[in-house]
Amino acid sequence: MSTPAHNTRVLLASRPHGEPTHDNFRLETAPMPEPAEGEVLLRTIYLSLDPYMRGRMNDAKSYAAPAELNAVMEGGTVAEVVESRDDSLRPGDIVLSHLGWQSHGVQAARLVRKLDPQRAPISTAVGVLGMPGFTAYAGLLEIGKPQPGETVVVAAAAGPVGSAVGQIARLRGARAVGIAGGPDKVAWLQELGFDEALDHRSPTFRDDLKAAAPDGIDVYFENVGGQVWDAVLPRLNTYARVPVCGLVAHYNETEAPDGPDRSVRLMTSILSKSLTIRGFIQNEFTKAHYKDFQNEVSTWIDDGELRYREDIVDGLENAPEAFFGMLKGKNFGKLLVRVGDDTTR
Amino acid sequence: MSTPAHNTRVLLASRPHGEPTHDNFRLETAPMPEPAEGEVLLRTIYLSLDPYMRGRMNDAKSYAAPAELNAVMEGGTVAEVVESRDDSLRPGDIVLSHLGWQSHGVQAARLVRKLDPQRAPISTAVGVLGMPGFTAYAGLLEIGKPQPGETVVVAAAAGPVGSAVGQIARLRGARAVGIAGGPDKVAWLQELGFDEALDHRSPTFRDDLKAAAPDGIDVYFENVGGQVWDAVLPRLNTYARVPVCGLVAHYNETEAPDGPDRSVRLMTSILSKSLTIRGFIQNEFTKAHYKDFQNEVSTWIDDGELRYREDIVDGLENAPEAFFGMLKGKNFGKLLVRVGDDTTR
Repeated sequence: MSTPAHNTRVLLASRPHGEPTHDNFRLETAPMPEPAEGEVLLRTIYLSLDPYMRGRMNDAKSYAAPAELNAVMEGGTVAEVVESRDDSLRPGDIVLSHLGWQSHGVQAARLVRKLDPQRAPISTAVGVLGMPGFTAYAGLLEIGKPQPGETVVVAAAAGPVGSAVGQIARLRGARAVGIAGGPDKVAWLQELGFDEALDHRSPTFRDDLKAAAPDGIDVYFENVGGQVWDAVLPRLNTYARVPVCGLVAHYNETEAPDGPDRSVRLMTSILSKSLTIRGFIQNEFTKAHYKDFQNEVSTWIDDGELRYREDIVDGLENAPEAFFGMLKGKNFGKLLVRVGDDTTR
Repeated sequence: MSTPAHNTRVLLASRPHGEPTHDNFRLETAPMPEPAEGEVLLRTIYLSLDPYMRGRMNDAKSYAAPAELNAVMEGGTVAEVVESRDDSLRPGDIVLSHLGWQSHGVQAARLVRKLDPQRAPISTAVGVLGMPGFTAYAGLLEIGKPQPGETVVVAAAAGPVGSAVGQIARLRGARAVGIAGGPDKVAWLQELGFDEALDHRSPTFRDDLKAAAPDGIDVYFENVGGQVWDAVLPRLNTYARVPVCGLVAHYNETEAPDGPDRSVRLMTSILSKSLTIRGFIQNEFTKAHYKDFQNEVSTWIDDGELRYREDIVDGLENAPEAFFGMLKGKNFGKLLVRVGDDTTR
């Protein structure tokens, strides 16, 4: 494959106030970077779009440093080696990398991980076998600690994290209740074997949740916040665990919602029910659990016990629009941008 | 000591709406109960007054079943055996018991624990060597998990739980910052060796807290809620732990405070700082840790490394007034009602 003369990239042009818009991004071409000794020039195949990116667009301290203005938007990528100045990699090798929103980039060879296209579709390295999958695995097992027979509820259940959470919960002997938006997603959750699948847009959602968890909720894997969390809180059992992985319903909010102030009710529930509410990002658990995750999840995938779904958008220029949609729950499965051809498929 | 003809007791006459009043209690005399086989008749010496009792006065499900109307108010007691119909106990023995707000009562001998007045003042069995002390010990060590050099902040620090929390934190190598109401309590915390002692009534409280915890807060032992929690939350470090033991600032509230709704800010902080917020009551930890607690804390007391303070009110008829004051932070140390003579002192 011939290399174009230029690199195409998306920069953070300005910080959003509330919902991000096209004005916050700038697509431009730049000279093709050149690798130094120990580095590789990479061609992006898949760019992963993830909700955490919204937090980085703000100036405020989030769980990661804010993205810099006029710099390339960050992001995990699957890429092909175009040129290598390191003995460990050759042109044509496929690697997990962190190029961000651009068609090409240079990285130190020691910072990328070579993938085996025979082992699993390469896109899964930023999906079920990568960060989102590990987020589900570590958050559910290390914080949620589901026990056989317990009820695990997960929001954004048709997303890459939520769908893995529900299936892993079932593989550990728990009941899985998935919450998603719209009948298509609900149908897919049923197909995946969730014990119950609920549509949070239904007018009877609160009653549906009560019926789906008649013995209360032991683990709630929080991706969303908002009205789903409002409905879950009163149904949590004593000693329930709540891994807080995301709050996508609130990422575009610019100020605290109107009252009453329900923070006291929340703290009172935590006290009266001996709840554990625990925020996390997956990298806290990498050292202790990543290998187990890769072994266990790839076995489950091979055995057909854990399934996943990808939502692939073509073209880097379409990344902002896809990103906006993701924040509104429009994606269905792991959202990827195919920036360049996947010659392994 | 001659036994009176009647038992004096305080009943829950009605449920409070907001702040409890004298109308919620009724003092009455009743016939002296008689022990059956395996039971003992006890004379109350000390009645422990604790914030959790406020929760039980409500009808709503709290972490314990609500107290029943027209029944004796529950509570931990230190009592003397007057008459025994069990081989394990003799008249004159001092026992930890759960007679509630009354001068006498009958309990199964197997449900009381004999105390050794030579080992420690008997009042400590409902204080530093009893439920409040164990609450501090288990909540701090099992949930707070303070590491050497970390900063532990505790609210209601001059109370029986808070004063133990701060001292145990120091014994484990952490820095202890105590928060209390008023200069006398602050002075006592300094005397106990707290690294910093702050008055939450001070107009400069937020700045004082910032100065007292220049490296942020790693563990916040929550007894209070309200404006203390508001000041602490923004200063919590990544991976901070918050054992939630009580929320006394809110116990008399009848509805959610006015907005804005800060529950989203709270959840966002939990997410962005990977916080652990964990409600508990001490009995969750009894089986695994009570023996260690008794051994370790009694050694610390003997060695003068852990000190405590008692606030003793005379007369069962004064229990309601003392209880009202406790909910406003008027007690200074472990609040006890001396219901009958302590002949061991």
